[in-house]
Amino acid sequence: METKNSNYRISSAVIKRLPRYFRYLRELLEGGRMRISSGELSKMMNVTASQIRQDLNCFGGFGQQGYGYNVKYLYGKISEILGVEQGYKAVIIGAGHLGLALVGSPMFAKRGVTLSALFDNSTELVGGEYGNLHIYDISELEAYIKENGINIAVLTLPRAYAKEMAERLKNLGVKGIWNFTNIELNFEDSDTVVQNVHIGDSLMQLTYRMNSNEEK
Amino acid sequence: METKNSNYRISSAVIKRLPRYFRYLRELLEGGRMRISSGELSKMMNVTASQIRQDLNCFGGFGQQGYGYNVKYLYGKISEILGVEQGYKAVIIGAGHLGLALVGSPMFAKRGVTLSALFDNSTELVGGEYGNLHIYDISELEAYIKENGINIAVLTLPRAYAKEMAERLKNLGVKGIWNFTNIELNFEDSDTVVQNVHIGDSLMQLTYRMNSNEEK
Repeated sequence: METKNSNYRISSAVIKRLPRYFRYLRELLEGGRMRISSGELSKMMNVTASQIRQDLNCFGGFGQQGYGYNVKYLYGKISEILGVEQGYKAVIIGAGHLGLALVGSPMFAKRGVTLSALFDNSTELVGGEYGNLHIYDISELEAYIKENGINIAVLTLPRAYAKEMAERLKNLGVKGIWNFTNIELNFEDSDTVVQNVHIGDSLMQLTYRMNSNEEK
Repeated sequence: METKNSNYRISSAVIKRLPRYFRYLRELLEGGRMRISSGELSKMMNVTASQIRQDLNCFGGFGQQGYGYNVKYLYGKISEILGVEQGYKAVIIGAGHLGLALVGSPMFAKRGVTLSALFDNSTELVGGEYGNLHIYDISELEAYIKENGINIAVLTLPRAYAKEMAERLKNLGVKGIWNFTNIELNFEDSDTVVQNVHIGDSLMQLTYRMNSNEEK
């Protein structure tokens, strides 16, 4: 599958690898690095240099022989492709431990996403504050999203409510749903995209690798 | 890269897809299904039927024409490959919101991993209980791991402590580290495998897809 984006044609396999380049380039930038060769990036990232050249050269010829990549330029291009520059605004629905753990993470700010509010249905939580965010009653969702131009909803509520909430968000015109409920949601032929997170899949990669190690 | 496991040779690309098959097959089993065709599985999982046949046929010829796959057998085989049958035991290091969110998740039990205890360095938390797990002081880690045969450590502590803690766990002989600290840890040429979780990469997949949608 190929995707057209800002005049580049980038395969979905490359797209999946871009967030990792984004993280490494960001660290290089923060450390004041201006240029990096594919060889050095290869060592840092534990990927072959030819893979790196293949992945990054589709953005145009800014990996000059002998000069390496311009870190800032490449970071900017990748940020643009990944939507970091769009200034998306998000709310978290479900102020349990997972919701609060996400509030405390610098992940959103680093990726250009502003966390705007929390929502919950528990009278104990509603009206409180956490990490400078107000916790609203879920009945206030419609008004809040419209008034504040929210683009993203993060679902950290119990899985039993996931489908109904996702429908409600789609009808509100929310463009992105980041779904932590472990139910696979899918809105095809819709303007709303859903990204399902399955942390358990990563646990299985771990146990698979442990198991293979033992059989060596 | 190919991996030898239980007499099969399975590519790393297939391995990455197995946890998703595991989830779907588990749901089918729980719903009492005995057989499923590649066509029906294809519709459920939104993957082509030929991809499914390619992925699953490397475990041997149990996708019989006209009969479909034996759900229980396939689930059992995939569980075995993924290490679900090993009965691994885990502790969580860091009893903040993320650590407690993981305790509350059925994910571990479903994947054959038993959560055994929590560790923290905060005197406010140590000595408490959460979800039937005791919260121990981090100074008790060495003794606990040895006495209880712990195989997996889940790192949900602040990232500043991640490297030092990982070294400590490796020296203790812990075979698997599931790292949520957003620092990439890597122990090559070691018996300890590290699985790094980067939740932010999933957020970037979401914003990428939202951004591409808008450009359509």
